[in-house]
Amino acid sequence: MAVNLTAPERIEPVPGARWAVAEAAIKKPGRNDMALLVLPEQAAVAGVFTQNAFAAAPVRVAQAHLAAGRVRALVVNSGNANAGTGRGGLADADACCAQAAAVLGLDAEQVLPFSTGVIGQRLPLERMLAQFDTLGQTLAEDAWLDAAQAIMTTDTVAKGGSRAVDIGNGERIVLSGIAKGSGMIRPDMATMLAFIVTDATIDPPDLDAALRAAMTNSFNAISVDGDTSTNDACIACATGAGPVLSTADQGWAGFVAALTDLARELAQSIVRDGEGATRFITLAVTGAADAAEAREVAFTVAHSPLVKTACFAGDPNWGRILAAIGRAPVPGFSIDRVSIALDQVAIVAEGEPRDDYREADGAAVMARAEYTIAIDLGRGAGEATIWTSDLSYEYVRINAEYRS
Amino acid sequence: MAVNLTAPERIEPVPGARWAVAEAAIKKPGRNDMALLVLPEQAAVAGVFTQNAFAAAPVRVAQAHLAAGRVRALVVNSGNANAGTGRGGLADADACCAQAAAVLGLDAEQVLPFSTGVIGQRLPLERMLAQFDTLGQTLAEDAWLDAAQAIMTTDTVAKGGSRAVDIGNGERIVLSGIAKGSGMIRPDMATMLAFIVTDATIDPPDLDAALRAAMTNSFNAISVDGDTSTNDACIACATGAGPVLSTADQGWAGFVAALTDLARELAQSIVRDGEGATRFITLAVTGAADAAEAREVAFTVAHSPLVKTACFAGDPNWGRILAAIGRAPVPGFSIDRVSIALDQVAIVAEGEPRDDYREADGAAVMARAEYTIAIDLGRGAGEATIWTSDLSYEYVRINAEYRS
Repeated sequence: MAVNLTAPERIEPVPGARWAVAEAAIKKPGRNDMALLVLPEQAAVAGVFTQNAFAAAPVRVAQAHLAAGRVRALVVNSGNANAGTGRGGLADADACCAQAAAVLGLDAEQVLPFSTGVIGQRLPLERMLAQFDTLGQTLAEDAWLDAAQAIMTTDTVAKGGSRAVDIGNGERIVLSGIAKGSGMIRPDMATMLAFIVTDATIDPPDLDAALRAAMTNSFNAISVDGDTSTNDACIACATGAGPVLSTADQGWAGFVAALTDLARELAQSIVRDGEGATRFITLAVTGAADAAEAREVAFTVAHSPLVKTACFAGDPNWGRILAAIGRAPVPGFSIDRVSIALDQVAIVAEGEPRDDYREADGAAVMARAEYTIAIDLGRGAGEATIWTSDLSYEYVRINAEYRS
Repeated sequence: MAVNLTAPERIEPVPGARWAVAEAAIKKPGRNDMALLVLPEQAAVAGVFTQNAFAAAPVRVAQAHLAAGRVRALVVNSGNANAGTGRGGLADADACCAQAAAVLGLDAEQVLPFSTGVIGQRLPLERMLAQFDTLGQTLAEDAWLDAAQAIMTTDTVAKGGSRAVDIGNGERIVLSGIAKGSGMIRPDMATMLAFIVTDATIDPPDLDAALRAAMTNSFNAISVDGDTSTNDACIACATGAGPVLSTADQGWAGFVAALTDLARELAQSIVRDGEGATRFITLAVTGAADAAEAREVAFTVAHSPLVKTACFAGDPNWGRILAAIGRAPVPGFSIDRVSIALDQVAIVAEGEPRDDYREADGAAVMARAEYTIAIDLGRGAGEATIWTSDLSYEYVRINAEYRS
């Protein structure tokens, strides 16, 4: 059911970055559900993680290991989030890191663990540990598509992409990334799981700054159902196999732009593959007092079940949009200045339906698979754009049956 | 599909309060869709209204007329909310008040208008104005059930109830109330529409205080879908036909308790009849830093689509509850102190599943039509209890088809 989304045919290898995948039958057999990424010694790694107060065990371990600053490998599993698993879950995450480190000749704190899937069940640790020999022996630079598939849960389409950037002086760098996520999507500093790797040589603080700059208008600008996961993480790696790049360089802006663009594509692909999604909707809010206010309004509309079901129905029920704007936690709104448009069709001006608006025109826009709901609050210069999906029978079915 | 809810067989008449109903075919013909309540000259009226910034035209007019302090009549219509209708909508609400006033020999500002139904369409004013003669001629003290039916929209069951209170000195008062609401339910100071009338003689400031005291644990403690309506209003009337009662009297506490109890029954009946509801769920949060924090956590869990679909499925997926608690906007949570129980079945203690928990026990609770999700945050003495419903295919169907 994904909206205008197909799996990538190819994801460009990044010099220095090697992936391997394996099947541990974590939730059920018949598919790869583990992935290992190994980086060279000079690599830099940055990460942003969920703000959910109940961050999962692997998130806690990954944050601690990342702080030590010597990361060389990432191990990812799907099928089980290792969340709500207490001290035992922390020990399981540690054990995965230790086993990966033993096979790769590293220290455990040089490995970051990531898990996604069902919450509240312990990992099938023995089956997972038994895969690390195979993983260590099958590392390859061209295994990106395999990795994108191995980290899927309720995703229906594997998600990934690449960018090449000319950073000046005839030097080029490549960025490739993969992501997973479909439900429990309202990232707060990061998405479910996303990994972006470049071959550039970048100091860790610069890489961290670039990653954080890229988040606001990518992973932090999407919502499927408003539920922030316990396991969200977005990781950027610079393998150091390519040219040196720093914030002082002429090519830096191009790198950040490419990183943001790739992150946005991955984030949008998560919305396009949102659980039960039949529409890909852009919410563009302008005229707010500031950007934060614009985001509040955009997310309030994006999270309204009544707006989302109207989108599913293709019903231009703009009254529901107006009602959702009105309950946004923003003081001092005046309806008299609010305008609403669906793509190029202006519907509401100064808080009232326009005389020239015809419902058939609104319905024609909402019959499209993708369109923009543009909201002008008429009270300032603040803007925000976010992306969301609709609320369908299929969303209910997926989440009512997910554990069965 | 309402959960353990049947229409009241009888709502007690309140001396001094007379209702009439009529059919104006506002949305479609075949049912009564207007109701008029007329009160005696000495009556006191208090009201609380939606906090939605885009309050509908009748809400704005009702607030202005209520402030004038001479209210004698309430006119209610279903089928059209007269919201998002701009200056024309305000004129329509005024016209209804003026016509009611003309028939009843009152001033227009002695009439409060209320509308509920579709947003963004003008009222069929002519058809409505033509009903006021009939309404004025058919007023009766025993027409409460007719009124409860006339104000329904997507409600499947009429909602109402009564209480009798002994206020001391051998004196008794009666309270009767009706309500409507099924979707767009996350009241903020009031619900969709509720009208409660007592025959006691109460000064307006005292009645206002009693109404506000009753809200917190009734209409402001429910949520169906988190969408706050533009038209919410809860009105309390004291006809003055009965004994005098003031805050200084011994019987006052009993009156407030009965008012709260009746308001809670009406509020709960809205959740029981929530759009597509198959479960009636009590969220009881204890151990919060304060009551406000407990409410934040309770509503965050109540609004989680993933928790709501798990409730629909009868799946004791407590990980989703934990994840929703973790994203509540409350600083400094520690998962290590959180406990979760379903009715008497303890599931999570100190942030981890208990050794003695069996999933079959959790599933047995969630198979019930009503149960309590009890959450202890283990960090203070703050408490809150709210009520909500699940998210079903039927919710999506109702809201995807509502305008068709």
